[in-house]
Amino acid sequence: MTRRSLRLGSGGEFDRLRAIFAALGAAGRDLGDDCALLPVGGRTIAISIDLSLEAVHFRTDWLSFREIGWRATAAALSDLAADGATPLGVLVSLGVPGNRQRRPGNASPAVQIMSGVGSAARSVGAKVLGGDMARSPRYLVDVCVLGRVARPVRRSGARPGDGLWVTGRLGGAGLALAALRAGRRPAPTVRRRFARPVPRIAAGRWLARRGARAMIDISDGLAGDAGHLAAASGVGIAIELERVPCWPGVTPRAAAASGEEYELLVALPRSFGTAGARAFRRATGLPLTRIGACTAGRGLRITHEGRLITPPRGFDHFRAR
Amino acid sequence: MTRRSLRLGSGGEFDRLRAIFAALGAAGRDLGDDCALLPVGGRTIAISIDLSLEAVHFRTDWLSFREIGWRATAAALSDLAADGATPLGVLVSLGVPGNRQRRPGNASPAVQIMSGVGSAARSVGAKVLGGDMARSPRYLVDVCVLGRVARPVRRSGARPGDGLWVTGRLGGAGLALAALRAGRRPAPTVRRRFARPVPRIAAGRWLARRGARAMIDISDGLAGDAGHLAAASGVGIAIELERVPCWPGVTPRAAAASGEEYELLVALPRSFGTAGARAFRRATGLPLTRIGACTAGRGLRITHEGRLITPPRGFDHFRAR
Repeated sequence: MTRRSLRLGSGGEFDRLRAIFAALGAAGRDLGDDCALLPVGGRTIAISIDLSLEAVHFRTDWLSFREIGWRATAAALSDLAADGATPLGVLVSLGVPGNRQRRPGNASPAVQIMSGVGSAARSVGAKVLGGDMARSPRYLVDVCVLGRVARPVRRSGARPGDGLWVTGRLGGAGLALAALRAGRRPAPTVRRRFARPVPRIAAGRWLARRGARAMIDISDGLAGDAGHLAAASGVGIAIELERVPCWPGVTPRAAAASGEEYELLVALPRSFGTAGARAFRRATGLPLTRIGACTAGRGLRITHEGRLITPPRGFDHFRAR
Repeated sequence: MTRRSLRLGSGGEFDRLRAIFAALGAAGRDLGDDCALLPVGGRTIAISIDLSLEAVHFRTDWLSFREIGWRATAAALSDLAADGATPLGVLVSLGVPGNRQRRPGNASPAVQIMSGVGSAARSVGAKVLGGDMARSPRYLVDVCVLGRVARPVRRSGARPGDGLWVTGRLGGAGLALAALRAGRRPAPTVRRRFARPVPRIAAGRWLARRGARAMIDISDGLAGDAGHLAAASGVGIAIELERVPCWPGVTPRAAAASGEEYELLVALPRSFGTAGARAFRRATGLPLTRIGACTAGRGLRITHEGRLITPPRGFDHFRAR
C-alpha cells in the first residue's frame, strides 16, 4: 500500500516500472505522484488506486474483515491526504474466495469488508460510489479514491532551505507488526494504530492551505519516502534522527524504518516555525515536528546526534520478512 | 466483466450484494448502474471499476498479455459507453506472479499488459493516469475508468412504447470462446472480436445525443442485460429473437446468450425509426437494429417467430462451464 499513483518497489520493480512508463509513452505522462490530477470544468480532481492483497498486504488471522476493508480504504485515502485533497468518493473491487468456511452467525466476508470500506469512507465524508466483485483464490481489495483539490501539493515542490516536518508519531504500526509476527497480541492502542489507521485528510488540507511546498505520506517508511520526495523535488534532504517523534517504546531508527504509518512528511517554507506547529495542533489535534531540512545537494543524509548513519531499508510490507 | 458499478452475479451473489448495499447504508446510495456519477463544478464525471482475474475472466493461453490489458480496459470503457460518456482517463491495478517463466526476448508481462491498457485508452482519447502493482499468485487487472458526460443515460429511463435497439451484431465473442474451449483456433475475425473488443464510445455518445432513454452494454448476454434494463426501468421488455442481428454462423438463440459482446442495448423513443438507424450507421459504421419494444408490464418476454421461448441463461464468463 504505497502512496503513489504508480507504486515503486525496490530493485527490479523500479526497472520494470521504467519499462512500463516507456511502453505507455505520452499516455502515461501524469504517472508518478501520490495522486493523478484530472482537470474537470475549472476544478481539479485527485485520483489514486491502491491494491491490497491477502498474504501481501494483509492476513485474515491478524485483522477482521471489517478492518481489512477499513485499512485498504484508509491507505488509498492517505494518498488524497498527501495531495491536500478533500475526499469525494471511493470505488472498490473485491476478490472473495468462494470455498472458505464462514464463521457461523457472521455476515459474509464480502459484506464485512464493504462495511469497513463504508465506515472509512464516511469517516472523511466520502461516499462508496461503486464497485466490482469476483471469486478469487485469495481476498483482494482494490480501492480507487477521488477527491477535489484547490491547490494540489505534489512531491516535487520542495526547495533548498525548506523545513522538513512530520505529523503524528512514528513507529506504532511497526510495533504492532512485530508483535503479530512473533505471535503476540499487540497492546490495544498499538493494534488499533495498525488495524484502523486514520488518513490525515484534515492535516493534509491544513498544510496545503498554509503553503506546503511538497508532501508525501509515509507508507514505505520515513527514510524511503523522504528519499522519494528528495528525488522528485531535485533537492537533498537532511534528517536529524533524534528529532523524529516516536511512538512510546520505539527507537528513532525503528520509527524511521516503520512503514504504513499514514502520517504526512511535508516540506514547508523556512518561515513556518513553532507558532505554525502550535496552530496545526490546535486545528488537528496532532503534533507537527520539524525533523530536518531540504538542502541544495541531492539524496538523503541522516544523522543521529551529529553522527552520519546508513538510512534504514525501505519498508516492503511483510512479504519479504 | 459485467458492466455495472456493482456487479450482480446470479443466485447467492444477489443476496450477498443486497446485504452489502444494506451494510453501506446511505453511503452506497449511488450504487447499481453501469457507471457511478459524480458532480464536479457543474460538470458530471462518470466512473466505473472493472476487475479481471486470471482463470475467471481470462486465460494466459488464450490471450497475449497485450490482449489481456486491452480487453480489461475495453470492458471498463464499455461502461462509459453505456452511459453516453466521453473517456478521460484510466487507473489500473496489476497483480503479477513473480515466479513464472518469461518467454526469452519478450518484455515483462506487466509491461505488455500495460502496453495493451495504453493502446485501448489511446484508442478512445483517454490517458493512463495512474496505477498500482503487486505480486500476486495469478494475474489480475483492475481498471477504473473516468469520463465526462453531459446527459448521462441510465438503465432506468425506459418507458412503455420505447423501441428496443441493439448496436452491431451479436454472437462473435461466444463463437470465439466455443472454439477456444474446444482447443481449436478461432478464425482471425472471430478471435479479434473476442481478444480486442471495441468499446462503443462513439455509438454511446451518438445515442445519448439522439435522446436514448435507457442504455446498458451487453456483457451478461442480451437476455440477461435486457432483464436488468427492464427491472431498473420498471417496464416489461418484449424481444423478437428473429430480429436479433447475428454474427455469421450464429443462431439467434446463441447470439442472445453470448456474453462480453460489448455492444449497446438501448431504449429509444417510438419516433426513432429506420431513418435514425441509417444516420447512426453513417456516423459510426455500425448497424443499429430494432429487436423489440418496452411494454407496460414487467419482466422479459422473448418470442421466436411468434412462439414464446424460455430466455437463455445469463452469461457467467467461462468459470461455470
